[in-house]
Amino acid sequence: MTTTPTPLDAFTRHTASQVVYQIFPERFAIGGGLGSADKLASPAYDLPQAHKCDWNDSTLQQPWGHQFFGGDLDGITDKLDYLADLGVTGVYLTPIFASPSNHKYDATDFFQIDPMFGGEAALQRLIAALHARHMGLTLDAVLNHVSDQHPWFLAAQAGDAATRDWFTWQADGSYQCWQDFSSMPELNLANPAVRDVLYRQRDSVVQHWLEQGVDNWRFDVAQDVGIPVAQEMRAIVGARFPNAGLLGELNGFSGAWFQAGGGYQGMMNYWYRTALLAWLAGDIDAVQMNHALRDARAGYDLPGLLCSWNMLSSHDTPRLITTVGSAEKARLAMLMQFTMPGVPLVYYGEEIGMEGGADPDCRRPMRWNAADWNTTQRDWVKRLIAMRQANAALQYGDVTVLGDRLPHSNALVFLRHTEVPGEAALVVINLGDEPLNALLLLPYSHWYDGVPLHDALGAAPDTKVQAASVRLNLAPHSSAVYQAVEPYTRYNFFKARNRI
Amino acid sequence: MTTTPTPLDAFTRHTASQVVYQIFPERFAIGGGLGSADKLASPAYDLPQAHKCDWNDSTLQQPWGHQFFGGDLDGITDKLDYLADLGVTGVYLTPIFASPSNHKYDATDFFQIDPMFGGEAALQRLIAALHARHMGLTLDAVLNHVSDQHPWFLAAQAGDAATRDWFTWQADGSYQCWQDFSSMPELNLANPAVRDVLYRQRDSVVQHWLEQGVDNWRFDVAQDVGIPVAQEMRAIVGARFPNAGLLGELNGFSGAWFQAGGGYQGMMNYWYRTALLAWLAGDIDAVQMNHALRDARAGYDLPGLLCSWNMLSSHDTPRLITTVGSAEKARLAMLMQFTMPGVPLVYYGEEIGMEGGADPDCRRPMRWNAADWNTTQRDWVKRLIAMRQANAALQYGDVTVLGDRLPHSNALVFLRHTEVPGEAALVVINLGDEPLNALLLLPYSHWYDGVPLHDALGAAPDTKVQAASVRLNLAPHSSAVYQAVEPYTRYNFFKARNRI
Repeated sequence: MTTTPTPLDAFTRHTASQVVYQIFPERFAIGGGLGSADKLASPAYDLPQAHKCDWNDSTLQQPWGHQFFGGDLDGITDKLDYLADLGVTGVYLTPIFASPSNHKYDATDFFQIDPMFGGEAALQRLIAALHARHMGLTLDAVLNHVSDQHPWFLAAQAGDAATRDWFTWQADGSYQCWQDFSSMPELNLANPAVRDVLYRQRDSVVQHWLEQGVDNWRFDVAQDVGIPVAQEMRAIVGARFPNAGLLGELNGFSGAWFQAGGGYQGMMNYWYRTALLAWLAGDIDAVQMNHALRDARAGYDLPGLLCSWNMLSSHDTPRLITTVGSAEKARLAMLMQFTMPGVPLVYYGEEIGMEGGADPDCRRPMRWNAADWNTTQRDWVKRLIAMRQANAALQYGDVTVLGDRLPHSNALVFLRHTEVPGEAALVVINLGDEPLNALLLLPYSHWYDGVPLHDALGAAPDTKVQAASVRLNLAPHSSAVYQAVEPYTRYNFFKARNRI
Repeated sequence: MTTTPTPLDAFTRHTASQVVYQIFPERFAIGGGLGSADKLASPAYDLPQAHKCDWNDSTLQQPWGHQFFGGDLDGITDKLDYLADLGVTGVYLTPIFASPSNHKYDATDFFQIDPMFGGEAALQRLIAALHARHMGLTLDAVLNHVSDQHPWFLAAQAGDAATRDWFTWQADGSYQCWQDFSSMPELNLANPAVRDVLYRQRDSVVQHWLEQGVDNWRFDVAQDVGIPVAQEMRAIVGARFPNAGLLGELNGFSGAWFQAGGGYQGMMNYWYRTALLAWLAGDIDAVQMNHALRDARAGYDLPGLLCSWNMLSSHDTPRLITTVGSAEKARLAMLMQFTMPGVPLVYYGEEIGMEGGADPDCRRPMRWNAADWNTTQRDWVKRLIAMRQANAALQYGDVTVLGDRLPHSNALVFLRHTEVPGEAALVVINLGDEPLNALLLLPYSHWYDGVPLHDALGAAPDTKVQAASVRLNLAPHSSAVYQAVEPYTRYNFFKARNRI
């Protein structure tokens, strides 16, 4: 059924209208036109384990965490024209705090930007350049655990009274650590002093960087941080930074986080990723795919769903084409990513068809020579971004799932629709080996009898609304994003006087 | 699931208990026993384009809008015995205001009843005769546009300052008009003066005729009139005429009109028509049919759904038998029309099996010679009306859709149920080519273990409730409307003391 239009607040509309580009900073670009050799001559890279490699020779070297190509924040700043041309509206960086590794998930100081990446001055240059383009910046934080080389842990381990209870010790001197990795001791979030330094104080990690101009945070392992901590953080941080987005990572279904209320505004939507890739792989059929889409609408509620990130690949997964097996399937996956509710998150290099297996293969340096690009993929991504940015329903419309009403097909079908009459998109993805020829009833009031429908992607045949139904006629393995067209010159189907 | 019983107000119960008969006045009957020749000799028909034809020679003549047979309001008054015998409780007339055409959708004066139809005196005779039989009268109004021959438009076009802004002009002198038909200029409903004369003033069109004794209005093209205008009209008109029904026409799904609240109490339920005819035609299967039934329950809410009109054919569509292809399918369609929630609207002549394609073929004169009647159809319609009028659940009960729980069938299955224990009806329509043999669980509390069930239509075998389940055993292409029977002489299943 068509759900009651939910009034969306300005934060949700703004957030849901973004397209975010994920960057692994060491591998995106080197600032100032430097080559790897010149950049890696910097003393920041004088580490015993460092493998210094040329950008264009991406042979993998162990230990993988210490192979360097020289990417940095100024490199990102230098490439904002490229990102703006692509159409993305924000950037999400994996960690950039001081750390000896290339991935910097083992930070030793949350208050310092790593010198390899240019230090805080480079961060300020990046922020200024992003904001000049009305683009936002999201940083990556881990609240659950720190590196065993972090001064907090080293002091506690040495018996420091002030920090001893920041961790949880057992009688034999061992300590709670993330999934038994002793290199990742878990912080004792029951200790108010820990919460103070992480997010409660004005100079806490979370508040400090927001004050420096960072726009949003993405937080690791929400299941370990827990719901009450997220709620308290949102209350405190949100009071001072009401426009800051706080996003949680949960590699699964996030319903409980939203049902509890008051925590993260959005989550990484691994739920949709799991469903979508499983469907493309033939591991589930369209019944489960359609249900999965509806489950998140019901469990996350509309604002939570819209503010969540739809990601297909990342620095922790194989690249998209490698996962799904072909560029064609990758394009179908991206079509879903850009039309299902939520913010599309594009992992760097996916737009040029880079391939690669699991970490470290998925973290190879970005290819900047256009001769290396898969231009079909790049045109597709640009087209999807432009389509989404031109259609409010795809950005922040509600979703009504319809595909399970066509039980003899293998199709995902859903309608996105805002409260503005006619502002809607009917998305049809036919994964079947057979054509999809069906009459579909649309329980949506504001596509009136006779409204012509045109596929924004230009592939499927035009159709039209006939008394709340639409005749679908799609080739096997094809898709459509139908939008309404005003066909008359002195008559409007969608009158302003129908808005309420 | 069984929905919570919604307390229904008296208006809703009354409205939902009606069976309405739609009449195209020029083609139903001539008053006073006149034949066409005598009636058409009246000066009212002295128009250059008029084709004057005999009632029994229905050869179609162009221009179709100016072919006359002489039907009028006194003709309807004369036939109220026929309508009462059929069992209908109200009459809906397509427009009767002054106009040169036979359909009168191009009115030139909303305050005058066309002389062809007998003028206002004939209307008053009809109202008195209807009310003496406790029958209601619904008239037809268009708020969105007028004829380009209407004095309002002619004055505006000539530059009249008072009415110029009643329409929307473009720089080149053209004007907004309904779907680009220049003969139907759209009224500028943003202009308060237009709303004043249409429905806001005590002597406005809408209020004037209610004051004259008309009971209800049916309004054209709700999508163009808009939701806010409907809300304002209902607030103003409802304050003075709280028992007047205001019904909107939308050729599609009306959820948004009800969700917005405060507008029309009911809508023309084209949604059900689309679903039902598509299912009978094999264009959709039972999955979509059952969903469609539930969609409207969810989107319209119960009072809105009950006050909406279920129509299968009209002056704008082919006749029912012509549409569905056989009298048998037409009877199945009417069974759904009379058991699905909402007010059945019977288009004149359907009860005698008249056939006919699109306008003008569907507007032929009513056949009054019983030798021309399909008595099987007429007996069926009378039986359906009698069954509905004897069963409160079919009139205003809530609906719980169950058919999609039998995925290997092609059946529509739903339970209608009021808040009175036992007052329920289980409707089963098996469109499949195979028998429907199934055990169906019924999530309904007040058909207790052992209650016998009898098909009100007498076709399906008796069955009984067994611990909230019922064994269905229906032949292909058959149906049942199961009602509870009290089998004991000194015991009642349904005790008054179980009512709350």
